Amino acid sequence: MTHMDFDALVALLRRIFQSNGTSATVADILARNCASAERDGAMSHGLFRMAGYVATLRSGWVDGRVQPRMEEGGASFLRVDAANGFAQPALAAAAPLAIEKARATGACVIAIRHSHHFAALWPDVEPFAQQGLVAIAMVNSMAYVAPPGARHPVYGTNPLAFAAPRADGRIIVFDQAVSVLAHGDVQIAARDGHLLPPDAGVDASGQATRDPRAVLDGGALLPFGGHKGAAIALMIEIMAAALTGGLFSHEVDWSAHPGAQTPSTGQCLILIDPTRGGSAAGFANRVEQLVTALHDAGQERMPGDRRLAARARALRDGIPVSADMLRQLEGLIAP
Amino acid sequence: MTHMDFDALVALLRRIFQSNGTSATVADILARNCASAERDGAMSHGLFRMAGYVATLRSGWVDGRVQPRMEEGGASFLRVDAANGFAQPALAAAAPLAIEKARATGACVIAIRHSHHFAALWPDVEPFAQQGLVAIAMVNSMAYVAPPGARHPVYGTNPLAFAAPRADGRIIVFDQAVSVLAHGDVQIAARDGHLLPPDAGVDASGQATRDPRAVLDGGALLPFGGHKGAAIALMIEIMAAALTGGLFSHEVDWSAHPGAQTPSTGQCLILIDPTRGGSAAGFANRVEQLVTALHDAGQERMPGDRRLAARARALRDGIPVSADMLRQLEGLIAP
Repeated sequence: MTHMDFDALVALLRRIFQSNGTSATVADILARNCASAERDGAMSHGLFRMAGYVATLRSGWVDGRVQPRMEEGGASFLRVDAANGFAQPALAAAAPLAIEKARATGACVIAIRHSHHFAALWPDVEPFAQQGLVAIAMVNSMAYVAPPGARHPVYGTNPLAFAAPRADGRIIVFDQAVSVLAHGDVQIAARDGHLLPPDAGVDASGQATRDPRAVLDGGALLPFGGHKGAAIALMIEIMAAALTGGLFSHEVDWSAHPGAQTPSTGQCLILIDPTRGGSAAGFANRVEQLVTALHDAGQERMPGDRRLAARARALRDGIPVSADMLRQLEGLIAP
Repeated sequence: MTHMDFDALVALLRRIFQSNGTSATVADILARNCASAERDGAMSHGLFRMAGYVATLRSGWVDGRVQPRMEEGGASFLRVDAANGFAQPALAAAAPLAIEKARATGACVIAIRHSHHFAALWPDVEPFAQQGLVAIAMVNSMAYVAPPGARHPVYGTNPLAFAAPRADGRIIVFDQAVSVLAHGDVQIAARDGHLLPPDAGVDASGQATRDPRAVLDGGALLPFGGHKGAAIALMIEIMAAALTGGLFSHEVDWSAHPGAQTPSTGQCLILIDPTRGGSAAGFANRVEQLVTALHDAGQERMPGDRRLAARARALRDGIPVSADMLRQLEGLIAP
């Protein structure tokens, strides 16, 4: 196990992306995103994802060089055509103008379409909260999730992320899939021969199953909280695809691109300037009071706290990377 | 059992409200809201609520005559001080300007504070979808819901409602509490001696319990979907209270007003004009395609379908009201 400096890890990932056909801009944005996830202990969206990024780039499914095209949608609405590129560069291109719009009018919707989102969602909202805004983000993905009663999946694992500023420059962030389990967790359970928890999946005939292979073999994941989670999946599918002009999760078809792993769908963000709100005490102070009430009630950790603790450790000690992972990463650099 | 015409029921409810001290405007808005819930088969928020409205008005906890005060928050932000009145008249006052703002800029936030919300939430979003907008609404309430691991409740049952237009003038609407069960369901289980489902509540020491009396006696409801539902409860608490300037659920204290039943908190709505989005096929057509895909997968009913079917029946046959309920309602008219 070695401990890498954040910038050194970013440089390595940047080299992987660029050698596999992305522009320097795209390489930098994706490298920082991926290294941030690893740094913050969100390993499922960290270095683990690099092989999938590379396989997708090599498959020709995604365009790693394209420039996102911004389209004025209104004083509080910004459309972005990611043009079959990654979602993060599209958001990075839109963010400065979107922040300006939200500060000028009180709110701004960012509607990104034809975008590949293969990363965690909290890095998309966190920077807005660090600038004092409230941000809600929704992304749809591949059809892995069936609504209760359905025979096959329609929804993606459709994450919802939320970020808001707290007092003292801290923030509150959550990022959660609508499925009980992540798709990767089911693959790991199948590999290791473990049963899934109840209510996590159905088999190809729509019957509840705890067998991970039955879920992967034509079955589906289930939303958390039954029909209530399914309603949230529906909202996210509508906001991330119908509103943006992206594909629905069930419309994504990468069969012509073996190796492709990134869903090509859409993403919607809602930014709100909380200084426009009606709190005399100030929004961030009120959020802080709520956090105090939650701690007093016995909730020890707030959403995002674990990531922030991992980040602090990584800043002090470096980011732990195994020798095996380092070899794998070096193997991803295209000659 | 008698079948009442919608307008006749509204007239009766209006009389109850007005005789108990509301203005004619407030009486009309609340009467239509309550009669609509009964008409649509949402009985828990229909005539059943009238006794609570009247007890609350008589307790002096809510002001049934006050005019909401609108405050310009920006081109896409509208603040409303409900001034200790009901939430529905505040929203009714804000809606025309909010729609105008959403159509002009692409989005509008409505932040209502010092408002009493005792009704279903879907009537707040449905009219916006009928006018072609997407609407998201969040309300906080009384502290009944504990985050996992907490010893006492902090969140309200904090409903989230969403509405979007479909093709052919139809709409899609959902409205769901963050708690597994409604507070009223627990009261009914306690009365009838039934056990609660697992994972629905905790007792006063924070231990899981299926005993409804233990939940009501110092215990708490739990959010649906464990920590994922709790994160949604947190988002709603922040949006409905910290953003608007309303009270948090755990801050509501009606102890000086025996009989009071309406939470005095806040409400946030986000309106989005989907014609600003990037769908070439048109937003409503795309939503319709998603509904078709869900039906094809085996989901028979969409959120809101049951209410719309009940509405159609009531339009044809009238709204069924028992003789007992009619007597109770007549008994609520103040002399």
